[in-house]
Amino acid sequence: MNSIILQQPGKIVFGENSIQQLPEDNLILSSNRILFLIANPLINAVKPVFDTMSTAGKKVVVIDYDFPGEPTFDQFDTLLNKSAYFRPDCIVGVGGGSVLDCAKLLAALTGNEQQLTEIVGIGLLKGRSIKLICIPSTSGTGSEMSPNAILLNEETAAKSGIISPYLVPDSCYIDPVLTVSLPARLTAETGMDALSHCIEAYTNKFAHPAVDTYALKGITLIADNLEKACKNGTDLEARSALSLGSMYGGLCLGPVNTSAVHALSYGLGGKFHVAHGLANAILLPEVLRFNMPASPDRHAAVALALGVKQGETDEATALAGIVRLQEISCACGIPQHLSEIGITEEVLPELADIAMNVTRLLKNNPRVVTKEDAINIFRKLL
Amino acid sequence: MNSIILQQPGKIVFGENSIQQLPEDNLILSSNRILFLIANPLINAVKPVFDTMSTAGKKVVVIDYDFPGEPTFDQFDTLLNKSAYFRPDCIVGVGGGSVLDCAKLLAALTGNEQQLTEIVGIGLLKGRSIKLICIPSTSGTGSEMSPNAILLNEETAAKSGIISPYLVPDSCYIDPVLTVSLPARLTAETGMDALSHCIEAYTNKFAHPAVDTYALKGITLIADNLEKACKNGTDLEARSALSLGSMYGGLCLGPVNTSAVHALSYGLGGKFHVAHGLANAILLPEVLRFNMPASPDRHAAVALALGVKQGETDEATALAGIVRLQEISCACGIPQHLSEIGITEEVLPELADIAMNVTRLLKNNPRVVTKEDAINIFRKLL
Repeated sequence: MNSIILQQPGKIVFGENSIQQLPEDNLILSSNRILFLIANPLINAVKPVFDTMSTAGKKVVVIDYDFPGEPTFDQFDTLLNKSAYFRPDCIVGVGGGSVLDCAKLLAALTGNEQQLTEIVGIGLLKGRSIKLICIPSTSGTGSEMSPNAILLNEETAAKSGIISPYLVPDSCYIDPVLTVSLPARLTAETGMDALSHCIEAYTNKFAHPAVDTYALKGITLIADNLEKACKNGTDLEARSALSLGSMYGGLCLGPVNTSAVHALSYGLGGKFHVAHGLANAILLPEVLRFNMPASPDRHAAVALALGVKQGETDEATALAGIVRLQEISCACGIPQHLSEIGITEEVLPELADIAMNVTRLLKNNPRVVTKEDAINIFRKLL
Repeated sequence: MNSIILQQPGKIVFGENSIQQLPEDNLILSSNRILFLIANPLINAVKPVFDTMSTAGKKVVVIDYDFPGEPTFDQFDTLLNKSAYFRPDCIVGVGGGSVLDCAKLLAALTGNEQQLTEIVGIGLLKGRSIKLICIPSTSGTGSEMSPNAILLNEETAAKSGIISPYLVPDSCYIDPVLTVSLPARLTAETGMDALSHCIEAYTNKFAHPAVDTYALKGITLIADNLEKACKNGTDLEARSALSLGSMYGGLCLGPVNTSAVHALSYGLGGKFHVAHGLANAILLPEVLRFNMPASPDRHAAVALALGVKQGETDEATALAGIVRLQEISCACGIPQHLSEIGITEEVLPELADIAMNVTRLLKNNPRVVTKEDAINIFRKLL
């Protein structure tokens, strides 16, 4: 068995209303100056928690995160200035992937001599001295479990990954109650993102038994519950299952990570501002059709985890799995074609060029993807 | 879904020869005075690793751990004096459960104002300032993943648990190569211990979906590979699978923990010096027969994970699972009766009394265990 490094928060508090336990967390108790970065719609839900800390004598500052879309370098600088002014010893991020990515980078760069531009890439951050707690409000990103953060370079329209073990939070609170107010559309898109984390890790060129366990369980949890949560946002059993599935998806990101789906979605997000989860959701079935011949057995196992019955061959099972995936996606109201989100034939070469640069993820794909392959995949989805 | 807290090392390095990566670990690189506590038979295997650190300018002290059986309070004091004299900033434990438990307690108590007697129990340790890395040399204990450490009180012959989130290591290296030299008997006993961690977590009164995933996967990995590793100690695929299964078993310990099997084994270990894994292995099938009526469905799921085919009822499946468990145990050379290890009828009440005091674990059992129940379970195994 190959060697693999699993890095995760040392403490994961999971469950309904688990956020109420935050004021008693040892990381909070040992901190004096606590910075909350909170997605705007969640401030009221989190207020009792930071009020409790203030009452206990902690200095608490709340930054209301309300940037639309992927966070840019400039937007992050604005946040960093606020954080540097406050000098926190603990940062708590509450929100979706953008908020958590920014909270992670704030904890890494506040009071650090390294500049943001110096740490773009893999393993360049030299350390982190500020405690970091992440609290997801979607079941999708997995950022709360991973060493990854993504910012948008507003000049080049390219998404830039900052990858470092120091970006893994010390602790995270996964409270399904925080996801209840998420609208059906965002539930669907973020859920399909989490599903793609699991599927891309399991079918990955660098898949590993220690991560397969998370991937397969995550696939089943999300496949069984995404439609339920989209149809009835207050179904807490479904919300909890999605939170757990998303947690498993997040655990796949550090050690194995994603592959061609995420690489091909880079241009859709960076250039055309398509939401990350939506871009992945549209791409996922067609990329799986492309990849399947490289490992029919692994794709068949994904299909079984999706709830499909064993077919006569691995290929047949795998293809039935892709159909099942599309059924789930359709039932949750996800568009199935790029044309529905404004993508046209003439931009496909540019999208493919952007994808070809994401070698960090393409190298993980079970089948080599050329520019022509990428264009063909995009074209089939028009 | 109930709330649950998962605590684990923030970094797990898994795989053959992964221990070779230790000198480059950030925890080591940021340390100056490194104390190794190493089980005597492993010193040569680990020597190149601590030699590399010495060459890199680190102060390294190696304590050769060679106490037989469960570590006692007195033995721990001897280690603590050596550690206090050296003043390490990082402690690395390499060995089975006894060694790792001592390494964890050394990291907690070296230079700490709290005394050992003050921290016996749950949640009494106030903190830990010394970095802690654990490296298991058996696939059994799970100590490298858990918040637990157990010492033997030599005066009362009682095993004392010290449970604290600060006892979870910062990092662990799980290297199956280190387990290759483990004799068949110890492979069998420690493997059955790991299996009991998984089974007792899955059938636990406080079982949780977030831990069930680890438990079921651990059961399958151990059931499929224990006999292979006992028959051929150099089968690295089997050793790796056992290491992974044992890791999952360890991940069950903190959030859910074990139940009546471990409680009933306390007296066998503390009073009669029966090896921990062996005591659990003998007790496991009979305790499962006792517990099964409380949750036939959960016991049937354990049976399926053990490789048994679905029967006509959950009860039938569960009972077939217990038979399968005994087949595995027998095939690995584990004695099936307490009389074979010198236990006689007249000591059963005393063993039951000791078990009744382990309320910390008995409260987890799916069925209430009275003193009479305990005696009956022991008697059936004579």
